Amino acid sequence: MVTSALMVLPLIVSLAYGEDCYTSFLLSMGISLAVGFPLMVFNKTEDRVIYAKEGFVVVALLWICMSAVGALPFVLSGEIPSYVDAFFETVSGFTTTGASILTNVEALSKGLLFWRSFTHWVGGMGVLVFIMAILPASNDRSIHILRAEAPGPIVGKLAPKMRDTAIILYLIYVVLTVIEFVMLLCGGMSVFDSLVHTFGTAGTGGFGIKNDSIASYSPYLQWVITVFMMIFGVNFNLYYLILIKKIKNIFKSEELWVYVGISVVCTAVIAINISGMYDSFSETLRASSFQVASIITTTGYSTADFNLWPELSKTVLLILMFMGSCAGSTAGGFKISRVILLFKMIKREVKILLHPRAVSVVRFEGKKIEEPVMKSLSAYFSIYVFCFISIFILISLDGKFDILTNLSASASCFNNIGPGLGSVGPALNYADYSVFSKIVLSVAMLLGRLEIYPILFFMSRAAWSKK
Amino acid sequence: MVTSALMVLPLIVSLAYGEDCYTSFLLSMGISLAVGFPLMVFNKTEDRVIYAKEGFVVVALLWICMSAVGALPFVLSGEIPSYVDAFFETVSGFTTTGASILTNVEALSKGLLFWRSFTHWVGGMGVLVFIMAILPASNDRSIHILRAEAPGPIVGKLAPKMRDTAIILYLIYVVLTVIEFVMLLCGGMSVFDSLVHTFGTAGTGGFGIKNDSIASYSPYLQWVITVFMMIFGVNFNLYYLILIKKIKNIFKSEELWVYVGISVVCTAVIAINISGMYDSFSETLRASSFQVASIITTTGYSTADFNLWPELSKTVLLILMFMGSCAGSTAGGFKISRVILLFKMIKREVKILLHPRAVSVVRFEGKKIEEPVMKSLSAYFSIYVFCFISIFILISLDGKFDILTNLSASASCFNNIGPGLGSVGPALNYADYSVFSKIVLSVAMLLGRLEIYPILFFMSRAAWSKK
Repeated sequence: MVTSALMVLPLIVSLAYGEDCYTSFLLSMGISLAVGFPLMVFNKTEDRVIYAKEGFVVVALLWICMSAVGALPFVLSGEIPSYVDAFFETVSGFTTTGASILTNVEALSKGLLFWRSFTHWVGGMGVLVFIMAILPASNDRSIHILRAEAPGPIVGKLAPKMRDTAIILYLIYVVLTVIEFVMLLCGGMSVFDSLVHTFGTAGTGGFGIKNDSIASYSPYLQWVITVFMMIFGVNFNLYYLILIKKIKNIFKSEELWVYVGISVVCTAVIAINISGMYDSFSETLRASSFQVASIITTTGYSTADFNLWPELSKTVLLILMFMGSCAGSTAGGFKISRVILLFKMIKREVKILLHPRAVSVVRFEGKKIEEPVMKSLSAYFSIYVFCFISIFILISLDGKFDILTNLSASASCFNNIGPGLGSVGPALNYADYSVFSKIVLSVAMLLGRLEIYPILFFMSRAAWSKK
Repeated sequence: MVTSALMVLPLIVSLAYGEDCYTSFLLSMGISLAVGFPLMVFNKTEDRVIYAKEGFVVVALLWICMSAVGALPFVLSGEIPSYVDAFFETVSGFTTTGASILTNVEALSKGLLFWRSFTHWVGGMGVLVFIMAILPASNDRSIHILRAEAPGPIVGKLAPKMRDTAIILYLIYVVLTVIEFVMLLCGGMSVFDSLVHTFGTAGTGGFGIKNDSIASYSPYLQWVITVFMMIFGVNFNLYYLILIKKIKNIFKSEELWVYVGISVVCTAVIAINISGMYDSFSETLRASSFQVASIITTTGYSTADFNLWPELSKTVLLILMFMGSCAGSTAGGFKISRVILLFKMIKREVKILLHPRAVSVVRFEGKKIEEPVMKSLSAYFSIYVFCFISIFILISLDGKFDILTNLSASASCFNNIGPGLGSVGPALNYADYSVFSKIVLSVAMLLGRLEIYPILFFMSRAAWSKK
């Protein structure tokens, strides 16, 4: 039902441009309403209490269903004939990955291009957070849903009521989106282009509308997108601090400093490494900062084919793929706060080894981190690595691509980035993977976006047992 | 002093073959005695109690000094002119890695070839374990040394006294070495060849004496080495169980089953993948099982240039590089028991997430694993990954090789294997890396062999402060 409501916007776009694909949107909406409406009306379940388990399964089920329905317009319009391809593309949209199976994105109709980018914007902040913000029915149990959908190790409540938190988050999201849209318009970008690129940046997605992504736009527009990618990679709680005028607290955020620090260092290293390839210093800096911002925020736009860059730059980008941005942002990846906490855990462990009787507490952003949080963090790290290796092995079974391609494709999809290295570089796409690998990578994107557990439970027997 | 004592054997070999390099051994022994003897005589420290910290530093210092001294004969004989290269080669020997900077190993004199392989044998079981076995002075505090040098998450005491444990371990080691030596002789290998290859197998090292490693030996000899590589990858405690006639308990070892299981599955996958490349089924099976055994036990011998194999096979080998064999064996890597424990930790964490109030205990090989062990295990996993990434970044600064070469070189040295993929494949070597990278990779080998902490402490300020 929600998906069909969301399709109203691309329907209007396709009608405005007088495109034939509007029928495919109407048909898709019809199908989803025909399935969804009876399900809603005849659902007489009394027991509506949501525990952790239900929270995880609800989120997983919703994301899979939305992607399944969202793929329909691509297939019905005939613009992506294979349903698996269309599903991959839609999952890539909602999970804000931006990995594409399209060999020529410019051939797509405007309505579908809009829909593709719009899924980024919806997926960025979370679909259920959106539903919570607009539905009055949500109660305190909804924290389980927010926790299952929101990225990061610790979910902060901004307001006592979960619904208020959801509304605040969405308001910040909308305001930032509008600002970027206006700034792109000011740079001479058309309304349609500004809109889709704003969606892609805000959700840290990365679907473009040109085969060379952002490369053909003006330096001003590239800089605007660079800055906004970084902005959407920051924890939204910090913007809330601006709203409630506690600006000083922002600078106490360890995660923010590390995030900025890593970006600056990586930009510098790459700028030095690629300096011979560009005419001027400003061009070198623009190319390196754009690509670093795009990868660390897991957006995936590109202004240069970094596949052609020296090996050191590619290595830096490959490692950045796993890093991700701040928790509580729209970005994917492992999240910087988790990296910081792991480092602190290592430091403590070393201390304990040297002085077995020392008592040591891990503090993060001024707060003491409780033992169960540390425990679940290290378990998350292990499960993250094991998921990544499993995806890597499964798509390697294809036997079609080299190790670097498979490795970076797994990293890119699992961390919701988009382009990888080798045969899935920014100038290329995922079209040549087998159907099996496309399904594996679709699952990888969902695992990454929902931070593993919801999808893992969904696929496990335990979640469906009555116990 | 110990190193110069060890050099007596290669000295005899070089004299027996009438080679000039015997002078370099005499000179090296002279230098190390001239430095070591005064240090021993004038050391009047009263406080000889060893705590965890001292255990770590003693081990690190010993391994570094032994490698520094052990490198002398290579330089003094002029056969490896650069000291950094010779140091790399010696560290690679003692840490049982087997990575070489030699472009033509067949040009080396017999005495130095013997010394190179003999360092594998010494490093395999541990130098300090050896010293503990022969010196009567060791007391119960020596557990800190054994713990710092022995691989694996849990160090089992076989006998109440540490010295007895060390003697039992070395007895098993010597007996297995003799059996392999005799079996190679029976296959028609010369005494010298049998000796060096037995040393390389026993220590899971991998230094060969031919440019094509083991490829030119007969199928029988290749199978013998395959089987013995697997044997030396098993926890030595299990052989002790045979000695004390508790054979039934062996089959209760979860680690052993997983070790055998992974080896069989990987051999099967690779055999199917490479079947088109070889003439007969037996040849295919021999090539795949040899390479799998060589990589999982972190030995590093090769009978085929797996660099030329299909991508899937290379991917399997790359992942195996990190796995390692059983704890308490002479092999390197992350160790299978750790992988099993991490899996169990993940399973428990998932259970806790679904049922927050459930109490869950991790059991391994019939024993309950205490919380601190689990905690230090997950810290070790994080530190292992961070070390690996740091090594990978540092050698990438070279800018000379592609990502796969740097990635596999880091994996191979850090896990004490030897050959990698790409430009460090089994038919190639590490000669072209810069001096800086060779030092980084030497440290990586020491980090891997001593399981990170001793070397990490050695490089940290905390270990040298008086507090």
